[in-house]
Amino acid sequence: MGKTEDKYPLLCAIDSPADLRKLSLEQLPQLCAEIRGFLIDELSVHPGHFASSMGAVELTVALHYVFDTPYDRIVWDVGHQAYGHKLLTGRREAFSTNRTFGGLSGFPNPDESPYDTFTAGHASNSISAALGMAVATQLQHESPRRNVIAVIGDASISGGLAFEGLNNAANMPNNMLVILNDNDMAIDENVGSLNSYLGHINTSPTYNNLRLRVFNVLKKLRLVSDSQKGRILRFNNSLKSLITNEQNIFEGLNIRYFGPYDGHDIHKIVRVLTDIKHMEGPKLLHLRTVKGKGFGPAEKNPAEWHAPGKFDPATGRRAEEVNGPGAKKFQDVFGDELLEIARRDDKVVAITAAMLSGTSVATMQKELPSRVFDVGISEGHGVTFAGGLAKEGLKPVVAIYSSFLQRAYDSIIHDVAIRSLPVVFCIDRAGIVGEDGVTHHGAFDLAYMRTVPNMTVSAPADAETLRLLMRTAIARQHGPFAIRYPRGKAIVGGGDDTASSIEIGKGRCLADPEGAKVAVLTIGTIASETADAIALAKDDGIECSHYDMIFLKPLDSAILDKVGKSGIPVVTVEDGTVNGGLGSAVLEYFSKKGYESQVTVIGIPDKFVTQGSVAQLKALCGLDPESIRQTIVKASKK
Amino acid sequence: MGKTEDKYPLLCAIDSPADLRKLSLEQLPQLCAEIRGFLIDELSVHPGHFASSMGAVELTVALHYVFDTPYDRIVWDVGHQAYGHKLLTGRREAFSTNRTFGGLSGFPNPDESPYDTFTAGHASNSISAALGMAVATQLQHESPRRNVIAVIGDASISGGLAFEGLNNAANMPNNMLVILNDNDMAIDENVGSLNSYLGHINTSPTYNNLRLRVFNVLKKLRLVSDSQKGRILRFNNSLKSLITNEQNIFEGLNIRYFGPYDGHDIHKIVRVLTDIKHMEGPKLLHLRTVKGKGFGPAEKNPAEWHAPGKFDPATGRRAEEVNGPGAKKFQDVFGDELLEIARRDDKVVAITAAMLSGTSVATMQKELPSRVFDVGISEGHGVTFAGGLAKEGLKPVVAIYSSFLQRAYDSIIHDVAIRSLPVVFCIDRAGIVGEDGVTHHGAFDLAYMRTVPNMTVSAPADAETLRLLMRTAIARQHGPFAIRYPRGKAIVGGGDDTASSIEIGKGRCLADPEGAKVAVLTIGTIASETADAIALAKDDGIECSHYDMIFLKPLDSAILDKVGKSGIPVVTVEDGTVNGGLGSAVLEYFSKKGYESQVTVIGIPDKFVTQGSVAQLKALCGLDPESIRQTIVKASKK
Repeated sequence: MGKTEDKYPLLCAIDSPADLRKLSLEQLPQLCAEIRGFLIDELSVHPGHFASSMGAVELTVALHYVFDTPYDRIVWDVGHQAYGHKLLTGRREAFSTNRTFGGLSGFPNPDESPYDTFTAGHASNSISAALGMAVATQLQHESPRRNVIAVIGDASISGGLAFEGLNNAANMPNNMLVILNDNDMAIDENVGSLNSYLGHINTSPTYNNLRLRVFNVLKKLRLVSDSQKGRILRFNNSLKSLITNEQNIFEGLNIRYFGPYDGHDIHKIVRVLTDIKHMEGPKLLHLRTVKGKGFGPAEKNPAEWHAPGKFDPATGRRAEEVNGPGAKKFQDVFGDELLEIARRDDKVVAITAAMLSGTSVATMQKELPSRVFDVGISEGHGVTFAGGLAKEGLKPVVAIYSSFLQRAYDSIIHDVAIRSLPVVFCIDRAGIVGEDGVTHHGAFDLAYMRTVPNMTVSAPADAETLRLLMRTAIARQHGPFAIRYPRGKAIVGGGDDTASSIEIGKGRCLADPEGAKVAVLTIGTIASETADAIALAKDDGIECSHYDMIFLKPLDSAILDKVGKSGIPVVTVEDGTVNGGLGSAVLEYFSKKGYESQVTVIGIPDKFVTQGSVAQLKALCGLDPESIRQTIVKASKK
Repeated sequence: MGKTEDKYPLLCAIDSPADLRKLSLEQLPQLCAEIRGFLIDELSVHPGHFASSMGAVELTVALHYVFDTPYDRIVWDVGHQAYGHKLLTGRREAFSTNRTFGGLSGFPNPDESPYDTFTAGHASNSISAALGMAVATQLQHESPRRNVIAVIGDASISGGLAFEGLNNAANMPNNMLVILNDNDMAIDENVGSLNSYLGHINTSPTYNNLRLRVFNVLKKLRLVSDSQKGRILRFNNSLKSLITNEQNIFEGLNIRYFGPYDGHDIHKIVRVLTDIKHMEGPKLLHLRTVKGKGFGPAEKNPAEWHAPGKFDPATGRRAEEVNGPGAKKFQDVFGDELLEIARRDDKVVAITAAMLSGTSVATMQKELPSRVFDVGISEGHGVTFAGGLAKEGLKPVVAIYSSFLQRAYDSIIHDVAIRSLPVVFCIDRAGIVGEDGVTHHGAFDLAYMRTVPNMTVSAPADAETLRLLMRTAIARQHGPFAIRYPRGKAIVGGGDDTASSIEIGKGRCLADPEGAKVAVLTIGTIASETADAIALAKDDGIECSHYDMIFLKPLDSAILDKVGKSGIPVVTVEDGTVNGGLGSAVLEYFSKKGYESQVTVIGIPDKFVTQGSVAQLKALCGLDPESIRQTIVKASKK
């Protein structure tokens, strides 16, 4: 037995939830403490999401203790909080590979374990998915009865998708249990009325206890049956309003509500889960938890400890505090420039969807709070709301991550583009994002934005161009304008950024040596890897011209005409799907003009990309300098 | 004065709401009756949406009577119900051009009138858009205070976007008024718990009256001020729960709730609107209305009278009842085949989003109701729910219109495609839809579906191929599968459909004459116009080969290799955007293979398409036989 086994004896004896179920109820608090200790040890060295999982420890233990997983299904929403779940389901020893290439996914992932039942990563999907599973269970008359449990946070439940799921829960046959893990936090502070509503629910403990006892007694006496869902529901509701003078949103939606209970009282949670486990019909259990529970610094500052990076478990100092925040990121370039522009133009307003700090909109919010709107996890609303603001003469800047903006595709078309309203989309986390993996890569934005009429689509190769694009976009009086840039360190050195604007639809020539054998067209920061590749190709004796298109739409026809007429092979490189992006646009243009150049298109292949470092994944996709060099060399022979 | 002026003297004297406001309160019931009469006269001859506007007459008159439109903004959700609004805002005489090419839009359209404030057509966007406008009003300190009113039905308010809007309403500065036009109907029967909840709200009239009077009295006495939003809200809520022992979902979201009132009592509505007009903060007024009000047959059967086609105003007989339902539509081919397959395979389930009859899923529902799920206006939920069903071994068929499925783009990617779950998407109303216009064309599905890894994308050219595709898709054990087909009459005669499946990724040759000068590739029913064009081109002496690709993804490489190697010019034709669809896919393939054929891509151009007949709009887009012929002739000269 090694050190870990000595330190965490109960945890290390659990290779699956079956082992957990052998423990006595009295041992569970110790197990919870061990899980917390293990998470602190591991995550201080191998960074990941921290505070969410710390807050969900008792809940996680109780679920696997009471329910027969994996036969019973737990659907984790988002999955930030599922590390404890991973530890209890056979992945303790592999946990040090969390979020690395070839290692454990940072989110639940059905490819990884039968205990992970559904894709997680984008918020608010758990109720709909669990409802589908619960209905399937009934339709297929599965025996023994299979329980399906969705675990959702108070931020995620404010998303429209979650509401649609709740609204549909009571009118189809199912016994779904929704656990509302209410820590009063999103990644940043939570927003929205539902959130403050949840904070004010205070069902009396007397009532809560009475209700369960009355139900159990009546059931034993066979005075009610589980299947008379409607009658029991009404009974419960009238009992409740009798005692508390209060109705409840969830019961308004015909979902039986239990709570709120202390989400760190493991005995209580086990008891309640055991009681309600066999009840028929959709149910919601409201648990109050503390994000970061059990680690002082995280409890005090859960937003910073959402994903803290490496830290010292003893002192609670994060590596970033010790070493400084590191190089300036693209999001900071965006955030600083946004504030600059907003200071000069009071029509400028900003919208973000639960990502104030993640997008650096927080920079503007600190100085101009009345002009910044954090709409919570509501990307569709954020975009349509921006359409309304733009309609009345304001200049909204919508900052949403690429993969989350997929949720607003229809709002972009219907509520912004049809009227050609001047909404600026600043799309962060575009392209390969790295460790967050398959659900988080921004692979599709170039392609889906290009389908939208009236949309300008751009991507800067560097910080200077990002600034110029923002000035240009925000100064426009009409037409939506998308600017996409990646996660991570800003690339600087892209030239003069003192101008107030940049010409729309105009790219730039980065290299055009005499006797170039290949013309390389790029969009966005992949220009950087491509420039390295071009340098490598030069060593092979292949000179290339290099054009940074900056705009995917409209395309720079002068560059394309020049390249097309030259007849030399063309390589297009983009950090987005090869289906419908820059390569396709260039091919369409060339076919229209009748240019006969051989065009080679590279980008993110038409498959889902796993997790790993950005460099590893770019290599996997053929987008590292060496792979691009090979593509260039091959193209040069055409 | 003509006949109309005699029949509708009050209405015909109103050229703008300013004229309406000159009427006395006592004259309004007559005006409402005139509007109904006018709508019956007009719509019996020039078909359009009927029952919704009939139910909203008093509401419409009251809004324009009380509010200072167009300075005050009315945002109509969907816009089915806005015909009365059009009549009162200067469009009475043009109303006979409703839904025709160059005529009035069937929905509110800001290009048409300053009284139409926002794009309408897709449900549930009004609250978010109105909130944006209302916040902009406050941020810009507009004086006099500008009122913003969202009018939303009880079906639309169940959409996630509407919930996101409501959830955000109370935490930003605004005086938005939401009118909930509750007729207990979607296009078909309404579903969802919120709907049944609304049906049970029964605030006592005593309370409603008392509440308004108390508020007004306190305000006069300056005991409360409007700006103390929170305090008044709490006062109201506690007053209410004191009287009614009831809380309310909307008040749970910190939106002041008024109602329910009779939505056909014009005096009452005017009085209430006048009372609450100046209140600060977000408010919701709940009106109960009858869909089809004032026309017996429509009141009795509002679903059939949603958009009844031509009818006899005297007898209430619809032309379709008299002449029979006309030729079989694609949606019927789908509905009948779905039932056939579902009868044989009890794993097959169907999901639709408030479009049971519009998609013909109703056919299966009648016989197998327990396996059909109408999720209401919740496209995102519908897809994620299908993912959950598929996860547990069922075979879900999701039937949603192309333009509405845009709302589920992220659910398609995140909750279905990443896990490659076997969900079948039957995408109706693909391509040009005709009279419903800009918001309803299914222009983007081919392009956005092609971006999704693991997705099979197909489009039948005829009824027989649709059946084969459905059998093939539903029989598969893994992988999402999209089948898109247009609105309207099914094309029959596509060959033998007795087979149980069709080879995935395999197109077919429709013509390959000796000495073909141009190869034409099509996908979907545009094969029909293209065949006509090829016949026309033959008259010009240009022989063409014609391939029906059937699959956009995976492409038929045998066909493409044959065509590419032949070196003759290629024309691709599709009823979808030219950005990223079939043409792009063929170009990408050719570039990969190094084929040097000249490719001409035609499809829906990169702009938003107006309304008109399908034939008119195809001509506008260059997709009628004559335009396609011209494209072929031009291509043949390359």
